Amino acid sequence: MTEKEWLEYLKKYLVENSLLLRSKSEDCAVIRLSKNKYLLFTTDALVEKIHFQFSYTSFFDLGVKLATSNLSDIAAMGGDPKWALLTLGSPNPIDSSWIDPFMEGLIFTLKKFGALLVGGDTVKSPFFFLNLALIGEAKNPILRKGAKPGEYIFVSRPLGESSAFLRLIKNRSLKEIPESVKLAHLRPEPEIILGKELSEKGLATSMIDISDGLLLDLWRICEENETGAEIWEEKIPVGNFATLEEALSGGEDYALLFTVKKENLNTLERVAKKLKKTFFKIGKIIKEKKLYLVKKNIKIEIKPEGYNHFKAS
Amino acid sequence: MTEKEWLEYLKKYLVENSLLLRSKSEDCAVIRLSKNKYLLFTTDALVEKIHFQFSYTSFFDLGVKLATSNLSDIAAMGGDPKWALLTLGSPNPIDSSWIDPFMEGLIFTLKKFGALLVGGDTVKSPFFFLNLALIGEAKNPILRKGAKPGEYIFVSRPLGESSAFLRLIKNRSLKEIPESVKLAHLRPEPEIILGKELSEKGLATSMIDISDGLLLDLWRICEENETGAEIWEEKIPVGNFATLEEALSGGEDYALLFTVKKENLNTLERVAKKLKKTFFKIGKIIKEKKLYLVKKNIKIEIKPEGYNHFKAS
Repeated sequence: MTEKEWLEYLKKYLVENSLLLRSKSEDCAVIRLSKNKYLLFTTDALVEKIHFQFSYTSFFDLGVKLATSNLSDIAAMGGDPKWALLTLGSPNPIDSSWIDPFMEGLIFTLKKFGALLVGGDTVKSPFFFLNLALIGEAKNPILRKGAKPGEYIFVSRPLGESSAFLRLIKNRSLKEIPESVKLAHLRPEPEIILGKELSEKGLATSMIDISDGLLLDLWRICEENETGAEIWEEKIPVGNFATLEEALSGGEDYALLFTVKKENLNTLERVAKKLKKTFFKIGKIIKEKKLYLVKKNIKIEIKPEGYNHFKAS
Repeated sequence: MTEKEWLEYLKKYLVENSLLLRSKSEDCAVIRLSKNKYLLFTTDALVEKIHFQFSYTSFFDLGVKLATSNLSDIAAMGGDPKWALLTLGSPNPIDSSWIDPFMEGLIFTLKKFGALLVGGDTVKSPFFFLNLALIGEAKNPILRKGAKPGEYIFVSRPLGESSAFLRLIKNRSLKEIPESVKLAHLRPEPEIILGKELSEKGLATSMIDISDGLLLDLWRICEENETGAEIWEEKIPVGNFATLEEALSGGEDYALLFTVKKENLNTLERVAKKLKKTFFKIGKIIKEKKLYLVKKNIKIEIKPEGYNHFKAS
């Protein structure tokens, strides 16, 4: 079973009713408490040697990363992160030499975006794993569903540097890696503030955070809306030390990808100014249920699984 | 750092404010949404070889156990379990031969008590671990704090059989173990219905679920209330195949322990009849901050860490 098959499988057990809004294919479960109050509920785990290596990840980094991977799911729906529970599985006795920096990274990142750690559980485990469960709130959650053909596709920052880190660390020491690349991978920032602003202004018709690569996450938006998309190669914001391939398929960027109606482009520009951000208009939603990469005047169909597939074909 | 020290440590990072009610030392974090509406938020993990062995635990059992360990925390506060997220770490490809029975055990147990699985995450891992995060609701959560000297201590069912299972499985096959002992360990039931009834009737002045053994969990109530307790050996409901030691210190019973004022004993009896349950009045709360075991007319001080310590002294 691939991850996609697993998610499909899981769907048959997930319940949708009037209280639960589209929990099956969103970044968070969305629970309606009252007319303008929704709970967002998400969880994300990190496992030693699968998601991180202690050879290049400090405990502080680990805390930041655990917080961000969860906060980013709340950001993707335009929500406000509120309360978190930590599960810590550790092979080592808990010792302040490592637990202190870990908790500092975690709490620092949660607090920065208004979330509180309200409890936790610790268990013995043959190796390190960390799980965070996070509750957020939203008045008006932005879903994956909502994009329509003709709308523009935006990403909120340059892509690929987080993935470039994994390429560079293979034959360089941590010191030799550019600071921006280290930060992108080890201390990623969730786009909470942007998500909330887009939700308040009603500017994004659909939204997702880029955690598995631009193409794959864009394709999720397309599938949810029964559309396709074309993206313009020269408009893709490739991070300074990243390749185009890493920007398209790298993953762990935690940038937001969102769609905007043409008539809202001016308002969006004002939001960009207010937040002192640059948004990158990288393409648009199309009717045909396919993904195209447009390079100058050539339009090539690409597979959402990644740029690699495209290159090989 | 022992687990207790870890919890103490964790406290310095946990935040208490007007929204959060006593999250530091309860079974769940308690979040006030409005005057009579609280969210309960809890998480619990199971790790292969630490919390269970596949040699005697089926995947269905595992699902039941994961659900119950979380539901029991909600029960301990008199809450209504509502929404759950699953994190599944697995070394094996996901395959319906094991995921089907696991999900059935999990969903069956959640549904039985009104809770819904609303999402999940799956990660690669060198061995199995499972984490559930569960949100519940309560109008009037029952806290650990509230017990006063003179009040009676009750437990909601016989104790020790879950622990007896671990003793018996050492030199018996699963088939040779009595059914009640297998059920107690492999398919424990959370006391959701009782918890809610006690909360609605305002009958329990304090409550906890017995997950780490009667003595240890009773001592948590005592510490929270700056009291002690005496328990009466001949009144302890020792499960059929369990020893007194297992009833006192075994753990994973998931029975409720609660305290009741003398003037409410009659009402409590009516609740017992209504729910077709027997409650066991095992002792009372005392002023002196010590734990005593009373055997006939002899009163012996015991350590909360367990009956073993008592025997050794």
